[in-house]
Parts: sequence; structure tokens; C-alpha cells
Amino acid sequence: MASLGLACVRLCAGLTGRHAVPCLRSLRYLSGMTVSQIDEEVAKLLQLKAQLGGDDGKHTFVLKTAKGTRDYNPKQMAIREKVFNTIISCFKRHGAETIDTPVFELKETLTGKYGEDSKLIYDLKDQGGELLSLRYDLTVPFARYLAMNKITNIKRYHIAKVYRRDNPAMTRGRYREFYQCDFDIAGQYDPMIPDAECLKIVYEILSELDLGDFHIKVNDRRILDGMFAVCGVPDDKFRTICSTVDKLDKMPWEEVKNEMVKEKGLSEEAADQIGEYVSMQGGMDLAERLLQDPKLSQSKQACAGLTDMKQLFSYLQLFQVTDKVVFDLSLARGLDYYTGVIYEAVLCQTLQPPTPAPAEQNGAVSGDEAGVSVGSVAGGGRYDGLVGMFDPKGRKVPCVGVSIGIERIFSIMEQKAELSAEKVRTTETQVLVASAQKNLLEERLKLTAELWNAGIKAEVLYKKNPKLLTQLQHCEETGIPLVAILGEQELKDGVVKLRNVATRDEVDVSRAELVEEIKKRTSES
Amino acid sequence: MASLGLACVRLCAGLTGRHAVPCLRSLRYLSGMTVSQIDEEVAKLLQLKAQLGGDDGKHTFVLKTAKGTRDYNPKQMAIREKVFNTIISCFKRHGAETIDTPVFELKETLTGKYGEDSKLIYDLKDQGGELLSLRYDLTVPFARYLAMNKITNIKRYHIAKVYRRDNPAMTRGRYREFYQCDFDIAGQYDPMIPDAECLKIVYEILSELDLGDFHIKVNDRRILDGMFAVCGVPDDKFRTICSTVDKLDKMPWEEVKNEMVKEKGLSEEAADQIGEYVSMQGGMDLAERLLQDPKLSQSKQACAGLTDMKQLFSYLQLFQVTDKVVFDLSLARGLDYYTGVIYEAVLCQTLQPPTPAPAEQNGAVSGDEAGVSVGSVAGGGRYDGLVGMFDPKGRKVPCVGVSIGIERIFSIMEQKAELSAEKVRTTETQVLVASAQKNLLEERLKLTAELWNAGIKAEVLYKKNPKLLTQLQHCEETGIPLVAILGEQELKDGVVKLRNVATRDEVDVSRAELVEEIKKRTSES
Repeated sequence: MASLGLACVRLCAGLTGRHAVPCLRSLRYLSGMTVSQIDEEVAKLLQLKAQLGGDDGKHTFVLKTAKGTRDYNPKQMAIREKVFNTIISCFKRHGAETIDTPVFELKETLTGKYGEDSKLIYDLKDQGGELLSLRYDLTVPFARYLAMNKITNIKRYHIAKVYRRDNPAMTRGRYREFYQCDFDIAGQYDPMIPDAECLKIVYEILSELDLGDFHIKVNDRRILDGMFAVCGVPDDKFRTICSTVDKLDKMPWEEVKNEMVKEKGLSEEAADQIGEYVSMQGGMDLAERLLQDPKLSQSKQACAGLTDMKQLFSYLQLFQVTDKVVFDLSLARGLDYYTGVIYEAVLCQTLQPPTPAPAEQNGAVSGDEAGVSVGSVAGGGRYDGLVGMFDPKGRKVPCVGVSIGIERIFSIMEQKAELSAEKVRTTETQVLVASAQKNLLEERLKLTAELWNAGIKAEVLYKKNPKLLTQLQHCEETGIPLVAILGEQELKDGVVKLRNVATRDEVDVSRAELVEEIKKRTSES
Repeated sequence: MASLGLACVRLCAGLTGRHAVPCLRSLRYLSGMTVSQIDEEVAKLLQLKAQLGGDDGKHTFVLKTAKGTRDYNPKQMAIREKVFNTIISCFKRHGAETIDTPVFELKETLTGKYGEDSKLIYDLKDQGGELLSLRYDLTVPFARYLAMNKITNIKRYHIAKVYRRDNPAMTRGRYREFYQCDFDIAGQYDPMIPDAECLKIVYEILSELDLGDFHIKVNDRRILDGMFAVCGVPDDKFRTICSTVDKLDKMPWEEVKNEMVKEKGLSEEAADQIGEYVSMQGGMDLAERLLQDPKLSQSKQACAGLTDMKQLFSYLQLFQVTDKVVFDLSLARGLDYYTGVIYEAVLCQTLQPPTPAPAEQNGAVSGDEAGVSVGSVAGGGRYDGLVGMFDPKGRKVPCVGVSIGIERIFSIMEQKAELSAEKVRTTETQVLVASAQKNLLEERLKLTAELWNAGIKAEVLYKKNPKLLTQLQHCEETGIPLVAILGEQELKDGVVKLRNVATRDEVDVSRAELVEEIKKRTSES
């Protein structure tokens, strides 16, 4: 019904005033709409109005990007490049290859992989071809890629944009289009070795990006399931109780318990027992203690998870990262496809975004770049069953991986850059070729080409007779460190006046030695 | 009607055999379809069939990427990275910044920019929000970005994927999802200086990529229009005659003339006069000669274009690139938005793809990555009016730019890599940490972490007790040059056996000196 009503309103907008009455009548169709749907319809109508011509009868455009998306300006791109370089260096240090997949997949490739969140998938219009959807994450396309190419062993990273029709909270670095930055190890290996490497990678990246103190929570799907079983949670309530536990980082225990008992119908006793376990945090010692726990040790699953947890911690000790890793029984990541160890990295003190709008308090965790909660900047785990969902014979390829919450990291780095006195350069230009006198454009172009040919990053103003001051100001504004100044005298003498923009020192350098001198000066800085 | 028929067939596919008769009856609806539409419908039906369950009643998937798209495997990614690095270095050498825009835009942002090719735009499904389309190129989003942010001066590059619902000819490196690689200079400057820099950039990139000999054709929209005017082409036929001239690189003059006269109703005399002009090629001399041409010099527009062409060549001489640049009156690029100089770079001898399918002979130029013809690898021109289309007050920002046809370059580089004896490495790992004996996993992990912490790119096999041969084979397969071998004796002596994989030389290196030794050896190679 709602869509009929919308179609009618849309039609009305294109017509003149005499249709006002049927238009108003059609509003009864709109009763089922949410506030956000109404906002979107209003935006669509305004868009249409603009297309039909504004009040002045002129054709105008709505000049904006699509809801929940943004452009990156050169400064943001400079920061983005720096962050990517740090992350990619780490992935390469660990011997990873990279792949790329298309931005859209057959709709059915994504079907049945994301549970309730499937409603957030962007579909393409049926224009007479295959039914397509924009990718929702990089993990499902990765699993499709492995199954399609019958690959059973790979260590790969993939950095690309994914799409979710979520209600964006852009002030917190959450968008409908955002980067994911995934590292995964696929293959049948001895337990916990690749899992430990994933944690080592998170540790290295967060340390190198210098985002402040952090810790990495670790748990295991099997420990969670075993815990639910011994606490008396009925089998069919594991998933829903698990998603309630997942809220413990945002809600106090009392509220979580309330939701379990009142909304989800769990017995008070079961909830209290869960409450005891989920308050536990520790390291290898906790895993050892829980293996002796009279109740939990009754669960085979839990014991398998706890034994692996001990093994994991022994490898983490060898990797020297246990100072930041916490075995935390309250960690319960949302995604259905995890089968073993799960983890999440949290910054201890996040720089707060300027205006945390209260409206976004109702935002679902799903909209987040890595499916992680507020303050968390990386997450992942083991998913041994996903590739098998794509294989015609159901052959499994065990996988473990991590996704870096890159959008939140960008936001933090941008804030740091704004607070810092240091200016972010958006170009790498080493020298501006300038002149102090008129009619030297040709000489400037010739020298610039000489520098380009020698591999020097050089600029020249595209004006016949720019003022020297204009040329120097361009250097100040864009951070170019050197100016090569040409004049009649310099041309006669076969030299160039090389000026240091910061110190204003000038020296004559012979044309033959100019390239070497520029290289020397810019490698120093 | 066709869509009703399709809906019916789609429905039938989901039902059982007893519906065979109405299904066949509905085929009369299909009469208006093209072969390609039928192919797509068949694909859709097979997809649906698979979803419903195959003959064995099991749920299976169609394991493929969307039509016209592809995954990049690690080897392709390694080649792609190399090409991008060369191109980005060049853009940075010329002082360019970079920006990024979302993969989709408001539908109306793209409306009215691409003429007939608009039918190739991918629309997103209306899921209750704004009407969105996938970007078709990077130029229109760039113009939108400039108008939206009131930017009047920028030199930027943008490398990203764009989308066209074309009939892909994938053997020739043409896809529905493909990269564009654009460099543009926006701003009010003295004539032809930024234009000359764009040509210099094409020259540098094609030289550095070492794709074989090439030349760059140059012409000017105003010269074309002036030529049409003085040859007696009616004003309203300029665009359509222009698009016929554009076919001269694929068709002989006789066929082009035929199309002008028989299909487009031009007089034989006018066509013959055009024929004389479009056979002309030269350099600055040709521009000078044509400025004296009794007919062409009657056109103010043509004279303005020819005067600028002379100026352009004088700058190209200073940039030392005239050996590859040809003023060619037959060059007539398709896009409507060009207002001045246009250019296109063509490889002289392209490596031919394995199977040039005859079916793609009808392929429109539009499907090409840079809108360029077969053999061409870069193209662009001046578009002074596009930004004004987005500005509410119509304020113009003059622009000139170039798009590198990166997909074709990838294809050529891939073929070169296949023909070459040298193996393409997909990782950068410098050393594998191995052991010759059992029970040394912990020692291997510890040493690997030491190397990672020192910035060495290191791998270790995820097995408790891998065979030495397996470890050495992994190095051979992936091109890892060094192996650091641990054994009981080495541990006792505080050394590591460092093996050169190629020469099989082994030397003991003290643990303290290992990092330096690896760095020394891998910087040499």
C-alpha cells in the first residue's frame, strides 16, 4: 500500500495546483511510513522538483552526493594514503597477496549470508539482465572466489569499498559506502597458528598507527555455545541470547539481563549463571581455570574452545603480544558464520567526534564498518563453514581473518591532523619553477621539462607573466620547499637561483648541478 | 509487452512441468527481443533454476561473477600495482593531488551528460530513498565535485572503477566494470599551457610503461566545426557528421563517405570537401598552412582553433615531445562536452589478444574504457562548459584532462608477462623461517616474530612439523629468495643457517646479525 501512495505523491509533484485535492487524499496511504522513509521521500520529491524547474523557471540541480556517502578531498586522501600504506606494509610483511572482486555480485551470492541485515543490501535495478546487488562485505565475495577457483590455500588482503543501506551516523565515521580492509588466511593448518598471526597483525597495525592505547578481546564461539548450554539456555535460543550478550559493551548487566529474561523469556537462574561467566576476563590462566570449572567442563564444545584458547595464548606469548590481549567471555560478535575464535580490538581512549548526535543512539551495530561496537577498530574470527556454502559438493575450506575498521581510523587521524600544528601536504612537489621578470614563460617551461625528465617533482604556474609574489605564495600554501628562479641574468650566467621557501635563503646553482642539488636538499628534509 | 512476456517465462521456470503449455504460449511476447536480451534472460532463468534446486534436488549456486565483470587474481593484482605505481608517480611528479567520489551518484547528476550512451548507465533499484546510478565516468563526478565545493582551481588525478551496461568484449580488455585513470587541470589560465602538460603526461606514461612505439593525434573541436561549416554541412548535422568522421580509424574513407551521403543525407560535394581535409596530417606547419587556406580561414572558429594549435605545438617543442604528436584533422572524439583541443594516443603495434571474436565487430566505441578506438590507450581534451552545467548560476570553470586506458594497458602487460620467462611474484616475502627437524614450531614462531618486529618480510609454514622439502618448495613456488633454517645445533650455537634458494648456498649467521644480513642480501637483488 505504501508504495502505491508514494507513486501517487510522486505523480502529484509533477502536476499543477489543481490536483491538490486527490494528492491530499492519497496521504492516507502514507500512514505506515517511518520518519526516515518520509525524509527520504521528501528528498526525492525536492529532487524531482528541482529537475522540473525551480521557482525562477530555471533548470537547477540538487548538488549533493547520495545519502550516507561523501567525497574525499585532497587532504583526506593524503591521510587515507598514509593509513593504507601502513596497513598494506604490514600485510606484505606477513607475506600476503591481494585480490580484487567486482563491486556487485549476483544477488543470490549474497542471499542467506547476513541474516536480518540482508535488508540493508543495495540491489541494482532489473534492467533486463542478471539480478545484481552491491557487495555488503569482502568476506562473502572472498568465499565465492575461493569456491569458484577451487583454491584451498591462500593468505590474501583486500581493501575495497562495501555498501550498506543503513541509517548512517556520519559524525561517528559511519557511512553507507565505506572501506573494508580485510586480511584472511584460508587453508587446513595446525590449530591456532594462523589465528595467532591475525592477532599479531592487529597488534602491529594499531601500534604503528599510533592511535593510543588499545586492547584486543578474544573469545571463542564454542566457549559461548558451551556456556549457554551449561547455563540452561535452550538450543533454539543460543543465537538470540548471544546477540543480547553482544550488547554488554554498551549496556550495563542489569539491562542485558532484563532483555534476556523479559524480552527473550530466559529463566532468571540461567541469566544469573550467564552473568557470572560473562564478567570473567583473563589470559591463559583463565582458560586453565575454566577447564577445571565443574559446570563448564561438562561441555565438550567449551573444552575444545578452552584448549585452543590455551594454545592461542602460548603462540601469542612467542609473538610478544599478550600485554594487549584479554580472554573476555562477554565478547560475542554478531555474525552467524563464525565457528571458532573471535576477537575485537578496542581503543582505550577514543578522541570523541565533535557532535555525537543523540539521534544515532538507536543505530544498529550492523552499520559499522567492521561490524564492531563503539570504540572498536578491528574485529574478526574463524569461519570454517562459509566457503563450503558455495562449493557444489560442500567442500570446506577453513578460514580465519580480520577486518580493520578503517573509516573510524580515518576519522581519528583526521581529528589528530586538525589538532596538530603540522600542515598536511596534498602534493609532493619538490620545486616550483618561477621567474622574477616578464616574458620568460618559454624558459620556465623548458626548465620544468628538464626537471620532470630527471624525475624531479616540479610545478610551474600556467600564466605567461605571474608575479613573483604569487609564485612564492603558491609555495607557502601547498608546502613546496624550493623555488628555482629564472631571470635574464641567471640565463646569461647559466645558473638558477635556488630559494629555500622556509628560510628565504637563495643561492645560485649551475644549471648542470641543479637536479643533484634539488635531490640532495629534498632527501634531507 | 516484452517485459510482460519475460515475467511470465520467469514465473514458469519456477513451476513444474504441467505448466509447459501456457509457457510456450507466452513466447509470442518475446518476439521483440535481441539475441543479447535472450541470452541474459536465459542466464537469469538458469540462475533461478539453480536457486530452486538442481536435478538432484540439492540447493546449488551459480558460481560466477556478474556478466562483464571479473575477479583479479594475485598475479593480475601484482601487474596492476606496477602499472598504477608508474602512472601515479607521473601524476605526482606533475604536482597533482587526488580525490575520491562515491561509486554512485544521484541519478539526475548523470542525466543529460552522455547523449545516447545514457542507456548504458546502471541504475540502483528504488528501495525507498534517493534515485541513484553507478558512475559512468570520472569526469562528470569531478565536475559535480568542483561545482558543489565552489572550487575554481585544481590539478587532480582520480583512479577508480566506472560502470557501463555495454556488451562486453572481454577478450579485448573491455568490461562492464573497469578502471579509469584520469588527470585533469581546472582553472582559468593562459591558453594551451595546461593542455600541453596533459600531452606531456601521456608521453611520459606511455614511454615509461614501455608498451612499444606510439603516437598522439591532436585536433580541436573548433577546427572540426569550422571545417564542417565551410564544407557546407548544415548546422544541425555537425554532431552526426562528426560521429561518422570518428569512424575513420576503423573504416576506409569510401565507407565513411557512403554513410555521410546515403545515411545522413549530406551532399556529395560537401562529403568530398570533408574528405580532402580529413586526410591531412602534420605538425605546426600544417596549422600555419591551414590558417592561409582560402576556405577554412573564412571560419572564425577554425582560425581560433588553428592559432591555439600553433601555440600548443610551440609548447610541445619546449617539452620535447613533438616526435610523437601529430595534428590529424580526422580525429573527432565522440563525447559532446569537448569544447577545444582533443587528443588520443594510439599504440603503433599492439600485441593482439588471443581470440579477437568476430561478434564484437559491432561493438560501439562507447564501451571502451576511455571512449577511444581500437589500439588507442589514452584520450582526452578540453571541456570548458561541463562544470557550469552543475553550477546554480552557470559559472564556468575551464577544464582540460586526459584519461589513461588502463584496462587495455593491463591486458598488454599481462600478455607480456605471459610471454616473458620472468615469473611474476605476488608476494614480497624476503625470507621463510624453516626447520629441518621436528618439534621446533615454537622456535620458528619466535624467530619469525623477531624478523617481523625488525621490519623484515617473513613467512613461516602453519604446520607443527613441516618437511624441509615442503618448506623449500614453497620458496621456489612463490619466489622467496632466502630461507632461515633452525635446528638443534643452530639453536645451541646461537646461529641460523641462511640459505640462498637460487644458488643453494648455506652459511651460518649469528642471530644478532641475521636482520642486517637479510637486509643486505635482499637490497642487492
